[in-house]
Amino acid sequence: MKSDDKRSFKNYLVKKDLQLRIVLNSSLYMILIVIVTAMVVLFPLITEMVFSENMEVQYQTAQIFLTLVTWLLPAVIVVILLFIAHHIIVTHRICGPLINFSNTLKKVGEGDLTRKVYLRQGDYLKHECDEINGMIDGLSAILNQISEDQKTLISDLEGLTENIESLDTPDKIRTSLNAIKGEARRVSDSLALFTLEEEAQKAAPPQDRE
Amino acid sequence: MKSDDKRSFKNYLVKKDLQLRIVLNSSLYMILIVIVTAMVVLFPLITEMVFSENMEVQYQTAQIFLTLVTWLLPAVIVVILLFIAHHIIVTHRICGPLINFSNTLKKVGEGDLTRKVYLRQGDYLKHECDEINGMIDGLSAILNQISEDQKTLISDLEGLTENIESLDTPDKIRTSLNAIKGEARRVSDSLALFTLEEEAQKAAPPQDRE
Repeated sequence: MKSDDKRSFKNYLVKKDLQLRIVLNSSLYMILIVIVTAMVVLFPLITEMVFSENMEVQYQTAQIFLTLVTWLLPAVIVVILLFIAHHIIVTHRICGPLINFSNTLKKVGEGDLTRKVYLRQGDYLKHECDEINGMIDGLSAILNQISEDQKTLISDLEGLTENIESLDTPDKIRTSLNAIKGEARRVSDSLALFTLEEEAQKAAPPQDRE
Repeated sequence: MKSDDKRSFKNYLVKKDLQLRIVLNSSLYMILIVIVTAMVVLFPLITEMVFSENMEVQYQTAQIFLTLVTWLLPAVIVVILLFIAHHIIVTHRICGPLINFSNTLKKVGEGDLTRKVYLRQGDYLKHECDEINGMIDGLSAILNQISEDQKTLISDLEGLTENIESLDTPDKIRTSLNAIKGEARRVSDSLALFTLEEEAQKAAPPQDRE
């Protein structure tokens, strides 16, 4: 992701398929506008130029026609280029964050919760960025709790096996085991903060839910 | 999210801030195009109409001017409306999924991994949708493993406390405790599949990390 910060032109097309689709879609509208406008504008001029019975009018109209075409073409081309550049920049502000989000979500799926998402200046999707970082914080909080409880459990189990000689009555054994059980239950309770799909439901197609 | 499926007009503006921002941005370009085109087109006509010394040319040019304005305005208005509708639909295909993603990510952050994301027909962001569902599957797989191991640990601890009388030699206690320790270690090993941020790093500002 670091190379994105350089913002060379290539880096503006970070998600070619979606960006080009939107740019092409919008450019088609642009071209439709240009064609409609050009036809509406030029049709009466051409009619006048070709069919007028007054030579002077024909001449003047032809001059207007030439002026129009000479002025219009460069103006339209400049505006179309601006329009395309504008759309690439706007889609980049959406697609750049999306690439970053995807990479992070992939890492999270692998259990790596150390990678937050971030936005560059001008990026959209601030809300989604916060949402993902909030999710990572939420998962981390639960897992940190489980981890702490599990460490206590393990270290108490270690302590117990080192002092097996002191467990010389069933009562002492019971007390120690109950303490361990209590700690194991705390781990289970924290684990229960996660709601997992039942294996049976997993087989069902996703569109049947929600 | 269910109401989205009805697709009434209101449902096309699911994420007003972002959508209106994009639509307004693009409409500004549209209006720029229209103004530039109109100025370029009408300027020579107006010059001709006002300053021509030939009355006939003045009359004809005025007629062309009127025709242009009468034809141009409705055409431009229709195209602008089409353009805005088009942009609302395109942004809807991005923002609709984003809303769905946000809701799911929020649930995941709360530990609820039962809610997959889905796309409606025509929606963009298929890749991101798959990524989020993949992440949920990945997290679920690790957590299911931990959960299973933890259940075994708890049930073995229960079994042990019920049969404390059988633990009548240090060797038997050692064997039982080692079995429990082995199970607790399996839970720890699965937990270690998660990489969590150290508390110390958490204090650092996020922009220092990648």
